[in-house]
Amino acid sequence: MAQIYDRVALIGLGLIASSMFWAMKRAGSANHVSGYARSAETRETARKIGLCDSVHDDILDAVAGADLVVLCVPIGVMGSVMEQIAGVLKPGATVTDVGSVKRDVIENVAPHVPEGVHFIAGHPLAGTEHSGPRSGFAELFDSRWCLLVPPEGADPVAVQRLQQFWESLGSNVEQMDADHHDLVVAVTSHAPHLIAYTMVGVADDLRRVTDSEVIKYSAGGFRDFTRIAASDPTMWRDVFLTNKDATLEILGRFTEELFALQRAIRQGDGDFLHDYFTRTRAIRRGIIEAGQDTDAPDFGRKKS
Amino acid sequence: MAQIYDRVALIGLGLIASSMFWAMKRAGSANHVSGYARSAETRETARKIGLCDSVHDDILDAVAGADLVVLCVPIGVMGSVMEQIAGVLKPGATVTDVGSVKRDVIENVAPHVPEGVHFIAGHPLAGTEHSGPRSGFAELFDSRWCLLVPPEGADPVAVQRLQQFWESLGSNVEQMDADHHDLVVAVTSHAPHLIAYTMVGVADDLRRVTDSEVIKYSAGGFRDFTRIAASDPTMWRDVFLTNKDATLEILGRFTEELFALQRAIRQGDGDFLHDYFTRTRAIRRGIIEAGQDTDAPDFGRKKS
Repeated sequence: MAQIYDRVALIGLGLIASSMFWAMKRAGSANHVSGYARSAETRETARKIGLCDSVHDDILDAVAGADLVVLCVPIGVMGSVMEQIAGVLKPGATVTDVGSVKRDVIENVAPHVPEGVHFIAGHPLAGTEHSGPRSGFAELFDSRWCLLVPPEGADPVAVQRLQQFWESLGSNVEQMDADHHDLVVAVTSHAPHLIAYTMVGVADDLRRVTDSEVIKYSAGGFRDFTRIAASDPTMWRDVFLTNKDATLEILGRFTEELFALQRAIRQGDGDFLHDYFTRTRAIRRGIIEAGQDTDAPDFGRKKS
Repeated sequence: MAQIYDRVALIGLGLIASSMFWAMKRAGSANHVSGYARSAETRETARKIGLCDSVHDDILDAVAGADLVVLCVPIGVMGSVMEQIAGVLKPGATVTDVGSVKRDVIENVAPHVPEGVHFIAGHPLAGTEHSGPRSGFAELFDSRWCLLVPPEGADPVAVQRLQQFWESLGSNVEQMDADHHDLVVAVTSHAPHLIAYTMVGVADDLRRVTDSEVIKYSAGGFRDFTRIAASDPTMWRDVFLTNKDATLEILGRFTEELFALQRAIRQGDGDFLHDYFTRTRAIRRGIIEAGQDTDAPDFGRKKS
């Protein structure tokens, strides 16, 4: 694939940024990739494993001259990072982000974007339960969706180029507005994560079932929850605090449904339960047909 | 591995029974395995794929002469199947089951067990989201736990032999009483399944997020829920109806915790969320160290 940008800067070097780097190398999407992380330990790891063509101790050195700057920092600090780098951004450069929430990020970042710089918010729907600079891999975005949220009146050429960039990393790309994005991910990601965290917390709190029993006997379904409840705590704290309204709305719907199922159990309404469980099976089928998951039993888990 | 029983009868030929058959063949645990399924279509499939050494149209023919009879039917019909076969059971034979609930199965099966026959309830903690006679595979029980619930005063030789049988299929075996079993699986399996069904149901019901969006963007966490919400509806209806008390107790605890997290989100209490999410990460680590799941990102899912 051809080069899309000359110089790309990755700010924050965790799972997403490190996967972006390896995917850029695979595709040749950039000529030079500079990187910055706040933590000296992360920068040292990055240097050790060859993550980024240059790793900088000063964020401004990483950003200077970049044609594309990707903010891969927790949602809670997106605005202040943008404020910090605004002065050194190259005229005509594009700034994007990979945050899981878009309304809040746009509200905090957009005011600091200088004239002549394009800010186009983005969100690759990809990840694993691992985090940090060593967790990235080139295939993370393959066949996954990346959602772009361009501001009103965005430069179509800049948007088109960012789309090509994500496609070069293996993604499918779609555009939508910030509020719809935040609702979609509340359903497909944020509420499921909170629910998984909750279920794992319940198991941890119980006194009559020991921790070792929960762990030994987890293959019955529980272990699937623990995977997503092992994701980065800081990232998820920020997600819930910044996508508050949509998450709380979906959780309200969830509780309503859960109560209906609990009532059916209490009343012994087997038909209600059977119908419900039959309906949910079809959704799984759709996800597999859409190429968004494997049909292998147990996700094709390798035997441990 | 040496033969444990001369003749084994599998009643019901779904995921568990078919996996038991292939695991018995792998280990040489039995000399002859007979099979019966209520549905003519299932029996025909079994004959076609070589599932069981003999497949019988009459349940009594399958059971006659068996040293071990394994009830692999939905929990709701365990009692009536036991009543049906009681008359032809070989003296000294062992009857066991693979139901996910033990108190209810024992209450319904035990009254029909004839003098001189050993009934030892069992539950292999293994499964996938697939079902039916074609879904089985020999490795299903490898390194998974099988819980045995012997009645008071059970014959220790018969219990020991059944334990050896499950070990020959690859399982680890532990014994516990029925009520503790039912609570443990309510935590590790039944509540997580109901919650997954609920979350998938919520997504299906939403009007503002389309089905196709839910499916396309499921990689953010939701698809993990759909896997367990794709499990056999009849089996799960029976599980919830028969493990009602323990499931409702755990769901009550779950709701309490969920409300605490919702409150933290509403009030913007980031420390509470961060502490909670950090704690749940440790449980995942324990499950991986106990050999009950893979550490590969995303369960080592193969690319679809």
